[in-house]
Amino acid sequence: MPARLGALVEQLGGTLHGDPELLIEQVASLNTAGPQQIAFMAGAKYRSALDSSRGGAFIVSPTDGESLDRPHIRVRNPALYFARVAQMLNPEPAVCAGIHPDASVDVTAHVDDTAEIAAGAVVGAGASIGPGVSIGAGSVVGEGCTIGAGSRLHARVTLYPRSVVGQRCILHSGAVIGADGFGFAREADASWVKIPQIGRVLIGNDVEVGANTTIDRGALDDTVIGDGVKLDNLIQIAHNVHIGEHTAMAACSGVAGSTHIGKRCMIGGSSNIMGHIDIVDDVVVSAVSFASKSIGKPGVYTGSLPSMEHAEWSRNFVRIRQLDAMAERLRALERQIESLQSSKED
Amino acid sequence: MPARLGALVEQLGGTLHGDPELLIEQVASLNTAGPQQIAFMAGAKYRSALDSSRGGAFIVSPTDGESLDRPHIRVRNPALYFARVAQMLNPEPAVCAGIHPDASVDVTAHVDDTAEIAAGAVVGAGASIGPGVSIGAGSVVGEGCTIGAGSRLHARVTLYPRSVVGQRCILHSGAVIGADGFGFAREADASWVKIPQIGRVLIGNDVEVGANTTIDRGALDDTVIGDGVKLDNLIQIAHNVHIGEHTAMAACSGVAGSTHIGKRCMIGGSSNIMGHIDIVDDVVVSAVSFASKSIGKPGVYTGSLPSMEHAEWSRNFVRIRQLDAMAERLRALERQIESLQSSKED
Amino acid sequence: MPARLGALVEQLGGTLHGDPELLIEQVASLNTAGPQQIAFMAGAKYRSALDSSRGGAFIVSPTDGESLDRPHIRVRNPALYFARVAQMLNPEPAVCAGIHPDASVDVTAHVDDTAEIAAGAVVGAGASIGPGVSIGAGSVVGEGCTIGAGSRLHARVTLYPRSVVGQRCILHSGAVIGADGFGFAREADASWVKIPQIGRVLIGNDVEVGANTTIDRGALDDTVIGDGVKLDNLIQIAHNVHIGEHTAMAACSGVAGSTHIGKRCMIGGSSNIMGHIDIVDDVVVSAVSFASKSIGKPGVYTGSLPSMEHAEWSRNFVRIRQLDAMAERLRALERQIESLQSSKED
Repeated sequence: MPARLGALVEQLGGTLHGDPELLIEQVASLNTAGPQQIAFMAGAKYRSALDSSRGGAFIVSPTDGESLDRPHIRVRNPALYFARVAQMLNPEPAVCAGIHPDASVDVTAHVDDTAEIAAGAVVGAGASIGPGVSIGAGSVVGEGCTIGAGSRLHARVTLYPRSVVGQRCILHSGAVIGADGFGFAREADASWVKIPQIGRVLIGNDVEVGANTTIDRGALDDTVIGDGVKLDNLIQIAHNVHIGEHTAMAACSGVAGSTHIGKRCMIGGSSNIMGHIDIVDDVVVSAVSFASKSIGKPGVYTGSLPSMEHAEWSRNFVRIRQLDAMAERLRALERQIESLQSSKED
Repeated sequence: MPARLGALVEQLGGTLHGDPELLIEQVASLNTAGPQQIAFMAGAKYRSALDSSRGGAFIVSPTDGESLDRPHIRVRNPALYFARVAQMLNPEPAVCAGIHPDASVDVTAHVDDTAEIAAGAVVGAGASIGPGVSIGAGSVVGEGCTIGAGSRLHARVTLYPRSVVGQRCILHSGAVIGADGFGFAREADASWVKIPQIGRVLIGNDVEVGANTTIDRGALDDTVIGDGVKLDNLIQIAHNVHIGEHTAMAACSGVAGSTHIGKRCMIGGSSNIMGHIDIVDDVVVSAVSFASKSIGKPGVYTGSLPSMEHAEWSRNFVRIRQLDAMAERLRALERQIESLQSSKED
Repeated sequence: MPARLGALVEQLGGTLHGDPELLIEQVASLNTAGPQQIAFMAGAKYRSALDSSRGGAFIVSPTDGESLDRPHIRVRNPALYFARVAQMLNPEPAVCAGIHPDASVDVTAHVDDTAEIAAGAVVGAGASIGPGVSIGAGSVVGEGCTIGAGSRLHARVTLYPRSVVGQRCILHSGAVIGADGFGFAREADASWVKIPQIGRVLIGNDVEVGANTTIDRGALDDTVIGDGVKLDNLIQIAHNVHIGEHTAMAACSGVAGSTHIGKRCMIGGSSNIMGHIDIVDDVVVSAVSFASKSIGKPGVYTGSLPSMEHAEWSRNFVRIRQLDAMAERLRALERQIESLQSSKED
């Protein structure tokens, strides 16, 4: 869906420098952009990449634009503007209203006339599918689930019974919402007795859930995902977790049971958050780090261990088991030195 | 399915203090319980939470009950009793015997008359589905699989051919049982030659498998999951692994090939177990820890690295690469001190 | 599909010592092999296992074969030869050409006459399914996808629109190919604006993708998986990643966005590769290690932290936060000693 450069600025703002009639067909990176494509410059250090780019137009900051004589749009936040342009040029595929003959929809489910149910999808008793919703091929919507207007389940998503999904959400393939939390009591003979998981999963508006990510239902109360939360692929959210608005979590991270994460947090890939802790708003947990205790103030928290050449690792890591002994030896040396020094002064 | 307080005690034991006619509708936590709900007290430190609870009845230890004048049941293990009460009040949804018209069942498969095959499920040739089994929407049961009485596959579970599932198991959505193990031989040109994985997966009775968990089939022999094992979400069990009875593994953990884990072990979330090792019975591996060698005696094993403020991490972690050098310097200092001391004594 | 010992050698090479008429029914390990089974010996240290084996024939190196008087085949690489024998005795199940009546195939899709589309599978508009391809039960092939000759999608695989799969690939259940990469720009109010992911996933020939593994489509350009790459289960490949030919990655590992990994690398289980880095050919990343920076030369790189008894861990790990202070104290001691020594020499 191409657009003239002028139309972009009319719709999204910014100051245009160049021919408003230039037709832009697609977004691209500086390196790969062609004459009908627009790219953005993330900062002054990319100026040489821009200078050698074959792109037709650029999105730049006001400062970066001053010395630029090629077609460009000046805006305060080029990356954000680029996202908006990309959305304009690449609208979501239209929802084809209707229930595919190879879908299986329970007679007691409510499906809005403007919603789409694809082939192989299964919608359970009493489920409610809102306007403009798209249920992908092979997805399963359990009994009594509610899905808000404009949400899209890609192929092969599972909603367990009674799950609630807000408006304009995107759930990717293989996501499992509302499976039982991992809750057991232990018998005297060490066998496990299942604690029925009677809570639900409540997902707010504008949430994105990545491929094969799992969000468990609450044990007694609900698991809650706030508005605007973005979850990447292969993430585990355990029962009774709360995630605050606009928090983003990268792939392969996990949150153990009953933990509350604040708003606007950023949780790095493959990081782990301990159960039963609280993390305040605006916390960043670095990739491959383990948040093992509550975090009471905003900031960046890290605990990753970078790789090194194997020989260097062997040499140094064996010492980790000796750290306490080393500290003791250090303390002993300090005492001996002190004694030597005082005896010298005698 | 509400129950009178008296009925709970008749069925599950314990000593009732209070009105046996009190109707209990649901279990709840101390904080959220209402007058028709029952909560449990995990120990004396929760006494003030109980005192401020609006719950109708409580499950407590005999000791904790002595000073309590609200309706309660005294039992030795309140958490376990609570699980039993929760099961009574929240029975599993009944299995609706029969094959849904939108399911696809091979004519050579055996499906017990009391089993349910949901819409979109596919059952392969020669599969055997036992009494009271429930196969969820979109699940795929491969050729020659056997599923024991009372087991439940939620929506979108996959069993590869010849997998064996015992009785009363619960398999959650997205679980994949019996995919090929990761086995290859290497050609002279560094390309990989697939080693056919001809073993099976054998799952015992009373096993629960979490959402999107994968259990690979054996290479030559079988992968074996013992009775009563509980696996959380997004777990990887590689080929030829054996897991002993009543062992529980939390989410995102993984076991590499041919490892044997004993009975009654507890494996923490996001922990990893090396391949080709043996772990004895009653071992606990802490969350986010890596069991890299065989473990020969029961106990708790840990190797996690807690996060800290980023600046503190930067300051300290750069030293890990210097540990061996620090140890050498420490040794040198000790020698120097010794020499100084002996020279002083001369 | 049994074969005579002579037929194995005719087809696969090697030198036969023993009766060519001996019928071999299956491969097995030394420990479990019976009289109609063939096992291989990985090296001289397994000689006693071979001597006590009940196997009917063995695959050994020329050297190991010299002192062996039981039926055997001598070859340079017994493990590789064993893989070839296993393939001969266990051919892939034949593809049953045709579209199952319970599959849903768009009228504009092209399905080769020799391809199989199983029950419950969904094939989108304009997709192209090559000769001998097998699409498993419940798999979803999006619009405009291309699947090359001889590739096999097991049950419940998802290909998002426009994904390209080469020839002779194997995709295991739950794999999700082409979901959106995790790309967002941030609004002034800290909400996230989705950057449309307009690239594709391109998978080469002879690639294997494990169960529940996810490979995201590129943001602007494509995500590329080279020929002969082998990916285990539950792996995350982020947008714009390139993986070179014949690289193998073990389960639960992850690669963050825009990283390029070279050819013939081996990436250990549960390891993580940072985004926007380059790893050259022939690099080994050990299990449970984090490659946080570009790697410019072949070799083995490690960063894992083995578990230890909990008390030992407690004692030593608290010191990691003191490492910088310990290094300072060590430096101070060195200065004091130096001063003591020089004063002594005065």
